Amino acid sequence: MATAGKVIKCKAAVAWEAGKPLSIEEVEVAPPQAMEVRVKILYTALCHTDVYFWEAKGQTPVFPRILGHEAGGIVESVGEGVTELAPGDHVLPVFTGECKECDHCKSEESNMCDLLRINVDRDVMIGDGKSRFTIKGKPIFHFVGTSTFSEYTVIHVGCLAKINPEAPLDKVCILSCGFSTGFGATVNVAKPKKGQTVAIFGLGAVGLAAMEGARLSGAPRIIGVDLNPAKFEQAKKFGCTDFVNPKDHSKPVHEVLIEMTNGGLDRAVECTGNINAMISCFECVHDGWGVAVLVGVPTKDDVFKTHPMNFLNEKTLKGTFFGNYKPRTDLPNVVELYMKKELELEKFITHSVPFSEINTAFDLMLKGESLRCVMRMDE
Amino acid sequence: MATAGKVIKCKAAVAWEAGKPLSIEEVEVAPPQAMEVRVKILYTALCHTDVYFWEAKGQTPVFPRILGHEAGGIVESVGEGVTELAPGDHVLPVFTGECKECDHCKSEESNMCDLLRINVDRDVMIGDGKSRFTIKGKPIFHFVGTSTFSEYTVIHVGCLAKINPEAPLDKVCILSCGFSTGFGATVNVAKPKKGQTVAIFGLGAVGLAAMEGARLSGAPRIIGVDLNPAKFEQAKKFGCTDFVNPKDHSKPVHEVLIEMTNGGLDRAVECTGNINAMISCFECVHDGWGVAVLVGVPTKDDVFKTHPMNFLNEKTLKGTFFGNYKPRTDLPNVVELYMKKELELEKFITHSVPFSEINTAFDLMLKGESLRCVMRMDE
Repeated sequence: MATAGKVIKCKAAVAWEAGKPLSIEEVEVAPPQAMEVRVKILYTALCHTDVYFWEAKGQTPVFPRILGHEAGGIVESVGEGVTELAPGDHVLPVFTGECKECDHCKSEESNMCDLLRINVDRDVMIGDGKSRFTIKGKPIFHFVGTSTFSEYTVIHVGCLAKINPEAPLDKVCILSCGFSTGFGATVNVAKPKKGQTVAIFGLGAVGLAAMEGARLSGAPRIIGVDLNPAKFEQAKKFGCTDFVNPKDHSKPVHEVLIEMTNGGLDRAVECTGNINAMISCFECVHDGWGVAVLVGVPTKDDVFKTHPMNFLNEKTLKGTFFGNYKPRTDLPNVVELYMKKELELEKFITHSVPFSEINTAFDLMLKGESLRCVMRMDE
Repeated sequence: MATAGKVIKCKAAVAWEAGKPLSIEEVEVAPPQAMEVRVKILYTALCHTDVYFWEAKGQTPVFPRILGHEAGGIVESVGEGVTELAPGDHVLPVFTGECKECDHCKSEESNMCDLLRINVDRDVMIGDGKSRFTIKGKPIFHFVGTSTFSEYTVIHVGCLAKINPEAPLDKVCILSCGFSTGFGATVNVAKPKKGQTVAIFGLGAVGLAAMEGARLSGAPRIIGVDLNPAKFEQAKKFGCTDFVNPKDHSKPVHEVLIEMTNGGLDRAVECTGNINAMISCFECVHDGWGVAVLVGVPTKDDVFKTHPMNFLNEKTLKGTFFGNYKPRTDLPNVVELYMKKELELEKFITHSVPFSEINTAFDLMLKGESLRCVMRMDE
């Protein structure tokens, strides 16, 4: 390509300070170095994690920064040592990676790559500790190795899943974070057997993706738990048959759920990050066979407490990171599920705006009006 | 049989009060009622649980009582409705049962039968709420549905595993509780893959059975954790390669174990009942794939605490009851493992005494000198 090896000037949405609207700027994107790939982003979606680090509450603020991590794009050029990808390949960037060489990558049981596991404090490229973005020569920080709120971005090859080029990037872009996290939590970790009853705590995009996993697993009864009663209507489209609002009950919600299910849930998946929901998610599962899966990210001071007899009574407690998917190995297969029309991604994409209106996407998410808002980079 | 339908007079070891030596008495054993079986016990072993209920510390004392629950015997006669067993069948009594009709028995994931799950407060037969033991007409209480410290006992058919009549009852009698609990915790629940490193917390009989499971699973490195350094020598016979005494370290034992294993154990099994050991057992497993299994029985005021990020880091926490074995369905297969010489039960049986010397068995266990002491009923 004519641009290979050269700096590319393009548009990016830069977060200059915490909580302030992003501004579209012309940035310089340096060529990819060893084991790096420069990607032309075609579509990027907004995820809560972007908003969380943009608000920068309770964290060390890192600005100016280019956020964004749910996206789909096409390889523009590759750096030295990159053999698995070539210009023109369709890819999904992922906030966590797969080096294929560490103990985790070699284990069939883990997806928590030692080298490229998510690191929210890392704001530069792992290879040389530098940024590939500048504005008039001044560096702009990266975000979780992806920084997809830019027409071009540079990503470690281990954080890119090569996918079927027939797959529509405006749809499958949402597979690169939230959807896969929730869906995988159910199908890869909770693994409900056909006919089992499943509870989902938290009916945001991740929770609804977990619900989609329950629906596809053949759960005839799916109980949604959320503090916002408005979520029930939307959740019905994802297979939700019953709704419980903890605020409507004087007793703990796990007791309500146990009564509703004659002894407890077969499977329960927590997608809130709230420690009380995590504890209820475990308490509500059936003795003998119940499995609870924690997905939400807790705060550093949270403590999970339970009576150990729950374990002797054969309840299982697990958690998951990115739905237990290995990004490079497994994500192409999730894309194929969509291609075979087994996944209904369209119902997650409630909004779409031109990239220039990225702040609208933030507003929609902050108001709780969107599940996923996809931004079109070419507009 | 000539005795069928009649009261049998025989010898039993009766616990008259907490902590006092048992006394061998002549008892009357009533015929089995509906769904019950009268069994001639040939061998019975002593387990810590017998000692625990004999000491009756912190529980409601139930006396006079016939203790005993690890045993092997032969069916003498059967009550109405019993079709799966007939006089002459070789059986292992089990303290928990399998009715084959409840949700748990129908689930392939559970062994916690609704009807016959262990109930330490139940001291009579489940059918009519009465005892089958009397001394001069005065009832003597049962223990966990088995009461094997008697030449004859009456047991619900759901608490008897029919086994290969070729199996030596003086050996396989120990499969009816402690061995299967520990062994099953490893092979059915922790499920180490060949080559993985396993830690066992607590090197009593259950812990050593868990270790036997690790050895048979192909664990090249097995780390034993115990407060008593004398346990290491014995544990070596069960495959123990490393020993850690928490008392020898100023830092928490899980930190010691993580350092020893370059990041954590692949699998860990806790067989102590101590809440700190339970917590360490979970903390010490590797992120990404580590599985901790709790086997020990906690006290009612214990609280299991951990940071929920451990779950997001893909550590799994499980517990097990009776090694996840369904007593009637699975125990015959464990007996076959012994018959195929895959299990080495002999090394668990450190002592053998005539039934008349049952108090010696209690002394040996209280002094920590025995793993299993098998009592010969015909002496």
